[in-house]
Amino acid sequence: MKQIKIGLLGMGNIGTGTYKTLEMNRARISANTGLDLVITKILEKDLARERDVTVTPEQFTQEPADILEAPDIDIVIELLGGIEPATGFMLTAMHNGKHVVTANKAAVAANYDRLMGAARANRVLFRFEASVGGGIPILNALTSPLLANEYEEIRGILNGTTNYILTMMAERGMSYEDALKSAQAQGFAEADPTADVEGHDVANKLSILISLAFGKRVPPGDIPTAGITGITMRDIEKAAADGGKLKLIALAKKAGDDLEYGVKPTFVANDHPLAGVNNEFNAIFVKGNAVGELMFYGKGAGPLPTGSAVMGDVIEIARAISL
Amino acid sequence: MKQIKIGLLGMGNIGTGTYKTLEMNRARISANTGLDLVITKILEKDLARERDVTVTPEQFTQEPADILEAPDIDIVIELLGGIEPATGFMLTAMHNGKHVVTANKAAVAANYDRLMGAARANRVLFRFEASVGGGIPILNALTSPLLANEYEEIRGILNGTTNYILTMMAERGMSYEDALKSAQAQGFAEADPTADVEGHDVANKLSILISLAFGKRVPPGDIPTAGITGITMRDIEKAAADGGKLKLIALAKKAGDDLEYGVKPTFVANDHPLAGVNNEFNAIFVKGNAVGELMFYGKGAGPLPTGSAVMGDVIEIARAISL
Repeated sequence: MKQIKIGLLGMGNIGTGTYKTLEMNRARISANTGLDLVITKILEKDLARERDVTVTPEQFTQEPADILEAPDIDIVIELLGGIEPATGFMLTAMHNGKHVVTANKAAVAANYDRLMGAARANRVLFRFEASVGGGIPILNALTSPLLANEYEEIRGILNGTTNYILTMMAERGMSYEDALKSAQAQGFAEADPTADVEGHDVANKLSILISLAFGKRVPPGDIPTAGITGITMRDIEKAAADGGKLKLIALAKKAGDDLEYGVKPTFVANDHPLAGVNNEFNAIFVKGNAVGELMFYGKGAGPLPTGSAVMGDVIEIARAISL
Repeated sequence: MKQIKIGLLGMGNIGTGTYKTLEMNRARISANTGLDLVITKILEKDLARERDVTVTPEQFTQEPADILEAPDIDIVIELLGGIEPATGFMLTAMHNGKHVVTANKAAVAANYDRLMGAARANRVLFRFEASVGGGIPILNALTSPLLANEYEEIRGILNGTTNYILTMMAERGMSYEDALKSAQAQGFAEADPTADVEGHDVANKLSILISLAFGKRVPPGDIPTAGITGITMRDIEKAAADGGKLKLIALAKKAGDDLEYGVKPTFVANDHPLAGVNNEFNAIFVKGNAVGELMFYGKGAGPLPTGSAVMGDVIEIARAISL
């Protein structure tokens, strides 16, 4: 069986989930692809952490070159998060002929053209399914099975933290502050929730969706963005009285030759499919000129759902380079 | 630009929708793939029908060999429906080195092993996304971006006719007979609705899903199947009183080393994502051991949604053979 060697940059929560996804399902993946996927090297400082996976000390390195310059590594998975050094590492890996998979929405949204250009110039594959919608295979759908459509509208609930907070406010009558604390207690929100609650996380994801679906580059900073910090119980009650819910919606919509886009708390009528997307779940609603209305629903975050998306990208690359 | 030549078997509703999907979006498809997809020959007797597409008399033939034996045709799209002669035509096309795309759930479910075996033996690609869930890219999702999962459960609303009837009964208080007439008037149900309302159409689709997701071949006749003809207003009201809805559900679920499967009207609690799938819409709920719960929602039938899925398959094959 042909072996595909993988280098992993970062073994925090998502890196561990990715490793575990491969470990759990290695036999199934091999049976379906005829390929043996092996994570040979891992860039990570924290060797002491309990990870509940089988990993040997020899797999770890603290030297990026052991992965980025290693002649035997075929695919590099970048899960460090943050714009740098992640972007630089990905560019170096591509320059060295390695295919790259990432879950890093901030780096992809900030450096979309450079990363795509480097992939083309170095004739390597670059995939980032996990950067939008976690485990939901939305980027694959938009760029492959739905490609015979012109997209008219994309409307998404793309952040689990804020959707959880809005759900707790609407269904349990919690205040914004109490709902945020509950989200933090359950691990759905970070200690500093700014990027989530101010909408910046969603703007990164919408920037990526706009690039892939509409072929237009809009940096996240150019997307009008409002978060949920100003939402009061009165707003939630008004939405309910009007027959709907308030959701933090990322929207991109054709309007003649123009594209309208933005991120903001938006009224969603109860009969719209997005109205039933609650708690920490994400969903992306798509309108195409042939397929009509579609919706993709699932977990937008978490180690294993994100690991599923990362490994899906790895499998597609491994298949393509083994033809 | 490289040209990919396509032969189309059948230009009824779905064939016309497929042709129209390509016609509407040809420029976009070419820009994204660098390929020029052209339907050069169409097997069809009815030349008089108004189709609202640009097609010349020279494109039509009534001789299958003009497509199946034509040396210049790369991909054959089979949209005749029915098990034969469709299966025989697909096998001949594969034998002659042509890649095959079909929307024909009856033929794929009845002859899955023969068709897959012929594709392997002749080293051609065989795809049938449109056979399950119409425009929803569920087969692609299961066989590609989600492949790093072991599937634990697949639960689908896979027939628009019966979902429309059950929705009208629940929301408008219509009797089964009136709801069926309304479905027929709106084009969601055939004059002879037996295959839909008795669950046979759904059993075909579940057989295909089981093959792809669980690697197990269960012919549709071996799937315990009950339709909706016996559903009364009393059943609908009881489901509502219990906090849910009756839906015609196709289920396949791991139970230890066994697989449980069947098609039958089933109570769905209102907080399950499938409960909000109404009217003629379809949806497939999937549980994977890494990704968790996912749902894919969209139009399960209709010329353009089905055309979107057929052309998605054609594009994936065209890309693969042009690498």
